[in-house]
Amino acid sequence: MNELLDYFKKDISISLEIEHRLKEIIIEKKLEKGALILSENSIKKEHIFVVSGCLRSFYKTEKAKEHTIQFAVKNWWISDYMTLYTANKSVVAIESLTNSTVLIISNDKLDEFYKEFPDFEVFQRKNFEKRIAALQTRILNLLSLTAAEKYNQFMKNYEVFEKVIPNYQIASYLGITPQSLSRIRKERVKN
Amino acid sequence: MNELLDYFKKDISISLEIEHRLKEIIIEKKLEKGALILSENSIKKEHIFVVSGCLRSFYKTEKAKEHTIQFAVKNWWISDYMTLYTANKSVVAIESLTNSTVLIISNDKLDEFYKEFPDFEVFQRKNFEKRIAALQTRILNLLSLTAAEKYNQFMKNYEVFEKVIPNYQIASYLGITPQSLSRIRKERVKN
Repeated sequence: MNELLDYFKKDISISLEIEHRLKEIIIEKKLEKGALILSENSIKKEHIFVVSGCLRSFYKTEKAKEHTIQFAVKNWWISDYMTLYTANKSVVAIESLTNSTVLIISNDKLDEFYKEFPDFEVFQRKNFEKRIAALQTRILNLLSLTAAEKYNQFMKNYEVFEKVIPNYQIASYLGITPQSLSRIRKERVKN
Repeated sequence: MNELLDYFKKDISISLEIEHRLKEIIIEKKLEKGALILSENSIKKEHIFVVSGCLRSFYKTEKAKEHTIQFAVKNWWISDYMTLYTANKSVVAIESLTNSTVLIISNDKLDEFYKEFPDFEVFQRKNFEKRIAALQTRILNLLSLTAAEKYNQFMKNYEVFEKVIPNYQIASYLGITPQSLSRIRKERVKN
């Protein structure tokens, strides 16, 4: 819980009252490796903050091919934003790739919280601005980078977890084939 | 200007005071076909709302290859979110693909406006939630759809403008080759 408070406190002053209220609405959960925290066809609207470990959101096609939207490590948020912010059921699932600890806030509770503490709206808008910029960057990278450049980008963000993330998942995040990933890795070792 | 007020009024009540203030900070601009409203290496932080016409944001590589991030038509917003929300210069340019009319709000003025009318924060947070969901959908589509499915998706949103958008730009938005786009179109005509 303190991890999230520290994360907030970097940008906003948190009164004891706010801190108390946050502690009431936030649930800490330990997840085992492989556990699903959101499954397909769910309407669970939750914000998930990673305290430790590594999580992944992904979409599985009818032919069981997986596409990884996001990995999330310490101090990152992960959610299915379509389920959160539209009336649709989730097409995305979220799993824990390691044993991990997460903090969960339901979207309904967060909506109430905004009403109680309007200053938090400002803070959250700024967070969303950063998230929008990050999502645009991901789109631009998917469209414009070569497979090798995409992998370098991935390593900048997730190097610590490279060993625990299966190859096919890394490839599915980068939008490249596992064969292409394996070729890029060999090249990197050479250089 | 009224187009934007109507757009806002669908979700939020706009007092005469707010309306008056918005009219002070919003600039209407007519753009000719081909005009650049944001160029690369700019630090211009502006929100652009499309009243009529079609705009495009894109990234041009060193080898002059273009990657299209977004098209925007009537009642859509377009910006380079990285320039808007980070300290970086734009790597993206925004051009008008047709003669068009846009409304522009500078990010600084919008920040002041939020302070004057905190209710607007709530409205904007909800807009951002929708935008985040839409950006996630674009990422998921880029990763998981076949070229033909991507094109069908494109046609749902932009059919009216299909004729005015050059083929290479549509292909660069879908992340496919112009050859692949032309094959898909032929298939569609057959079916």
